[in-house]
Amino acid sequence: MSTHAFQAPKGTRDFYPSDLAVRRHIEHAWRSASVDCGFDEVEGPTFEHLELYTAKSGEGIVNELFSFRRAGGENDYALRPEFTPTLARMVAARAGSLPVPVKWFAIPNMFRAERPQRGRLREFVQWNIDVCGVEGATTDVDVIAVAILALERLGLTPNDVQVRISHRVAIARMLGALGVPAEKSADAMTLLDRRDKLKPEEFAQRAGELGLSADAVARFDTAARTTQRLAEPISTLAARIGIAADELSALDEVRAAADRAGILDWCTVDVGIVRGLAYYTGTVFEVHEISGAERAVAGGGRYDGLVELFGGPKMPACGFGMGDVVLANVLRDRKLLPDDGTALLPRPDVFVISAGGEAAESELPRLLMRLRRAGLHARTSARATRNVGKLLGDAGKARARFAVILGAELADGNVSLKDLDAGAQQVVSLAGIDALIKRAPHA
Amino acid sequence: MSTHAFQAPKGTRDFYPSDLAVRRHIEHAWRSASVDCGFDEVEGPTFEHLELYTAKSGEGIVNELFSFRRAGGENDYALRPEFTPTLARMVAARAGSLPVPVKWFAIPNMFRAERPQRGRLREFVQWNIDVCGVEGATTDVDVIAVAILALERLGLTPNDVQVRISHRVAIARMLGALGVPAEKSADAMTLLDRRDKLKPEEFAQRAGELGLSADAVARFDTAARTTQRLAEPISTLAARIGIAADELSALDEVRAAADRAGILDWCTVDVGIVRGLAYYTGTVFEVHEISGAERAVAGGGRYDGLVELFGGPKMPACGFGMGDVVLANVLRDRKLLPDDGTALLPRPDVFVISAGGEAAESELPRLLMRLRRAGLHARTSARATRNVGKLLGDAGKARARFAVILGAELADGNVSLKDLDAGAQQVVSLAGIDALIKRAPHA
Repeated sequence: MSTHAFQAPKGTRDFYPSDLAVRRHIEHAWRSASVDCGFDEVEGPTFEHLELYTAKSGEGIVNELFSFRRAGGENDYALRPEFTPTLARMVAARAGSLPVPVKWFAIPNMFRAERPQRGRLREFVQWNIDVCGVEGATTDVDVIAVAILALERLGLTPNDVQVRISHRVAIARMLGALGVPAEKSADAMTLLDRRDKLKPEEFAQRAGELGLSADAVARFDTAARTTQRLAEPISTLAARIGIAADELSALDEVRAAADRAGILDWCTVDVGIVRGLAYYTGTVFEVHEISGAERAVAGGGRYDGLVELFGGPKMPACGFGMGDVVLANVLRDRKLLPDDGTALLPRPDVFVISAGGEAAESELPRLLMRLRRAGLHARTSARATRNVGKLLGDAGKARARFAVILGAELADGNVSLKDLDAGAQQVVSLAGIDALIKRAPHA
Repeated sequence: MSTHAFQAPKGTRDFYPSDLAVRRHIEHAWRSASVDCGFDEVEGPTFEHLELYTAKSGEGIVNELFSFRRAGGENDYALRPEFTPTLARMVAARAGSLPVPVKWFAIPNMFRAERPQRGRLREFVQWNIDVCGVEGATTDVDVIAVAILALERLGLTPNDVQVRISHRVAIARMLGALGVPAEKSADAMTLLDRRDKLKPEEFAQRAGELGLSADAVARFDTAARTTQRLAEPISTLAARIGIAADELSALDEVRAAADRAGILDWCTVDVGIVRGLAYYTGTVFEVHEISGAERAVAGGGRYDGLVELFGGPKMPACGFGMGDVVLANVLRDRKLLPDDGTALLPRPDVFVISAGGEAAESELPRLLMRLRRAGLHARTSARATRNVGKLLGDAGKARARFAVILGAELADGNVSLKDLDAGAQQVVSLAGIDALIKRAPHA
């Protein structure tokens, strides 16, 4: 076998215990925020029929997919590059019987056949939040609030990341007010979306091609670069862009809902946020590290045509995706992840030590099984030594809360129980240690 | 798009909330048993280099794999059909620096391109437990005990499932004692492994071809069908097979370790358990539903050459895999899973109800976010009605522990808090409800 087979494929990861502990820490924040906000978890197949992706995104997407056909099989499959088609397919299949609103989350692994680079791998995990069946800015803000709750639980603050928000309807009206003809609105949004990739003169030239006057080009250029904390009035933003406040009323509704939920400080209006995917219809947003140095941590918005697109009924929908790779980079930059993920592993409740002797040796495996059956995380040393000091050292390295020492007291049915956080040691009855450890408060 | 693209690929599953709740219930038992027994979780890529599987299992395995090559790429990949090669590759890569013993568990999804049937799907989840770096029957029993702990937590008893145990060394010595020449030992084990698929006369004929006398064939036939509770002495088993007790000393060591750990009642010796995979070297076992009606729930054993096989040093190893599909069938047969998995979903701590009025309407979103920020699972109704009776009905359907009713008392900073399990209702301060709910014991 060539040696490369002994390595993880390019762009994928081996998760050793300390690596997986970091991933589980992030997933725990995602899952607990989802559940606390009333979302139910779903999951789908790791691969889907290739057509599920190509029919809506065009054949061009095939180059970004890992696709395959089983030997002798008839169907082409692809590893999922996103969860939204699976979700829409699942909602569409049971649209008549699901309770409305459908509030689902998922934490699937996903696959993109791109060149790996910072923040972008070939296999990654992505948290998905979706609400189907209800319209309105309140729902959009509910969705954004779940993301904020998870970010808070990971230790981030509004000084670390901001939710950059825009609204397709507000942008369309702004473009109209700036003189972009309705039929060129989509082109103008594409141009907005690419604003950071274009040189100023190139941007101005393309804006002119959309039929904008020199003055309108200048105002469009200003608008494309305009951001403002959501806490500020939307009318101020309209004045800065040079349009009537009423044109941005859709954003004002989002602002009012965010105010009611108490998350204004986490949010910034960014007129340049469009979201490339064509299927968004209303609110759109991305979560960014505040300096803008990293790729987007999350992206989403309202896509009211989504379920219909995948064979279901007309059904409003709103959601987002948040990947683990960029988020972990941001957390690491902010010192919100330990250098060694081992610190995030579950602590053993008890470390069982034999001080030697026949009674201790035969009690040890029985006691371990008893403690585990009682729901305690119980470990022991694999070393042959019966030096209690050395074994207590092992217990400390394992970060155990308690050590149980099986020694001479066994003759009376007793053991030594050492509280490794407090340092106190006492002789207690062997029969009662599981209850004692379970009652002890966690440090 | 053809309609089949709107369905999950053949042999894969859509997990709606109640389906995923069942899977999470099983995974929770697996994960908690693993952690309590001192195992650390690992994960690897969903696909590996195809060579990782073909080099050791031969090209024949390709038909059972989903393999693919990225457009324009050079490498062939395959969705993982098992976790063991990934685990061995990961241990081998860091064999010098990992603490010994390596005690790892994983709960990966896996893929087999076989025809789907009862107990066998194309995508499934499999719990893997592995210990590397220590030899001996005590370790083998430690591994078996983790499986038993998880099965216990799922409600199974020794009357529902049994761990059927054998030992390659004991079997080899038994075969020798029955007259099988050493060079035919492997063929004889293959024959043992296939005993249930062969007619008695066919079995006898093949045993004769191994060079056994008519008497030895009869004894081999008896041995192949011999099972005995592990609680019984191994000497009894040897007598039934007609060999000296000493030939089965390897099984006696397993028995003694199982006795010390207190799991004898979960185990049965089954001389016919061989495990097809060639790499097992000592103890082998399978978990079976007691009637033998289903496929194996789990299978594993000692494979001391494993890590070396994947480029690492010589390192003893022992482990098993347990899939979710057969296990769920067994649990369902034994009425250990609810008919509706919804009952396994997390219960909301609190359901917030607005009785109408401006103060209540503006408090509701703020309160929801506050409760969620306090770590409570808080829901509300999406319905427009402000009929408190109907909304309490929604709270009950959602299985909430408490309902908070925002009504006229808000003027004094108070709300009604209803304990939905006990039925009691009291007026309490709005500011204090999160603390009250957090202190309340769970039903």
